[in-house]
Amino acid sequence: MVVEQVVPVFFLSDSTGISAETMGNALLIQFPDLIFARRLFPFITTVEEAQRVVAILDAAMDGPVTPLVFTTAAVDEIRAVLLTSRCPIIDFFGLHMDQVEATLGVRGMHVAARLHGVGDIQRYNNRMAAIEFAIEHDDGQSLRALDKAEVILVAPSRCGKTPTTMYLALQHGIFVANYPLVDEDFESVDLPRPLRKLRERCFGMLTNPQRLSQVRTERRAGSRYASLEQCTHELRRAEAMFRLHKVPTINSSASSVEEMSTLILQQIKQLKT
Amino acid sequence: MVVEQVVPVFFLSDSTGISAETMGNALLIQFPDLIFARRLFPFITTVEEAQRVVAILDAAMDGPVTPLVFTTAAVDEIRAVLLTSRCPIIDFFGLHMDQVEATLGVRGMHVAARLHGVGDIQRYNNRMAAIEFAIEHDDGQSLRALDKAEVILVAPSRCGKTPTTMYLALQHGIFVANYPLVDEDFESVDLPRPLRKLRERCFGMLTNPQRLSQVRTERRAGSRYASLEQCTHELRRAEAMFRLHKVPTINSSASSVEEMSTLILQQIKQLKT
Repeated sequence: MVVEQVVPVFFLSDSTGISAETMGNALLIQFPDLIFARRLFPFITTVEEAQRVVAILDAAMDGPVTPLVFTTAAVDEIRAVLLTSRCPIIDFFGLHMDQVEATLGVRGMHVAARLHGVGDIQRYNNRMAAIEFAIEHDDGQSLRALDKAEVILVAPSRCGKTPTTMYLALQHGIFVANYPLVDEDFESVDLPRPLRKLRERCFGMLTNPQRLSQVRTERRAGSRYASLEQCTHELRRAEAMFRLHKVPTINSSASSVEEMSTLILQQIKQLKT
Repeated sequence: MVVEQVVPVFFLSDSTGISAETMGNALLIQFPDLIFARRLFPFITTVEEAQRVVAILDAAMDGPVTPLVFTTAAVDEIRAVLLTSRCPIIDFFGLHMDQVEATLGVRGMHVAARLHGVGDIQRYNNRMAAIEFAIEHDDGQSLRALDKAEVILVAPSRCGKTPTTMYLALQHGIFVANYPLVDEDFESVDLPRPLRKLRERCFGMLTNPQRLSQVRTERRAGSRYASLEQCTHELRRAEAMFRLHKVPTINSSASSVEEMSTLILQQIKQLKT
């Protein structure tokens, strides 16, 4: 029997550490057979805190497995302290900042990132407004404001509209409304009346019948609503409707929320240009 | 008058491009005086697509401003094509992958990341479940399930509970419930009854009175609810309550959703260890 070794992983930042985690995890995902024990040290803003972190890293260096350390610290004096660790450190900021500065011919500020900072505040407020919009229009609760939405996700109940809506709102500030297709919408192949003038903003979502039936069973076990027959029927009708009206379609059983959101963003950018 | 030059920025990926954007933007935020025109090329999965992107990059190279190009392409043959561009390319993957492989003593897979892939599926499903939980428990709609929440955000109405709830759910799979403080909760300094046994999971949120009044005015202009006096009163009472019961407090007027979420995550990790 092979004893699984756990690789300690540290993410260091003078800000939230989101970039260090995102980029570090994008590398770690390439090693699906290894087990990682992740630890985040965000908001390292003083030399003393940096020294405390270095002591923890150096202690980890004495363990059985060499740790991986990722840092995005932007403040030069903090980074300098962190790099005194005996651990090999992957410095996403230092090296690349040199490259960026060389290309731009300008020196960057080298300060801890404040997402709330001036310049991004409008983008930030827009994201917050988009979240509110998403919640107010979750599952067609308010049809009146559909025309304010930049994107309308159209699908039978429980196909995964809500997480995609929230992701587009929270990460990209896109105003997204949901339109749940119900029995009466399937009586004809026409688009539901409230969507007819808004077809260009609509994205259809589908999934596979087994998965839909399973998700609905968690809600209402044994119901007609959750039956494989009903799920198959609704998905077929929805697919036919989307095809007839040339509504672009994404499949939530085959793609993650991030992938679906990226596809939707690409499509709306094309429409705008 | 200085003519503002726009710097073209390209994010390239064989997956969603989220890592390239996150890390690239973390560098660009260090240049607040420059204007960037960002363009994302996700899902570059064939040599032909890579060649098409290289042609676009090379055309941009003939423009007035040298473009910045960030890539996280993981597939060797795709990356090799991209790196044939005349543009200087910041390759977050190639260089760091070598470092990670050297530290681990293992070669990575060098495949396009699939967030939906095996291994992450449990984490993914947990995030989706957390989103649903958040929506069901948004603004105290369902108090019964408060005890299922890992985190309970407690605040007067419109202090920013919802976006933080959604962020923690969507990005970290944390089950978060909201508890809005209303007039009757302020009649005593006790914690509201449903929260008394759950104090350790509570996080108080505050903001400044001017900002709260402004946000509420957008909802109900001229109401007592939106008045500066009422907002000041509620925030003072809430702050006193949090202090008395040692509920950790975050301020949404001073921190972004990402920063507040990071603080909350750190705190719940400390409680667990």
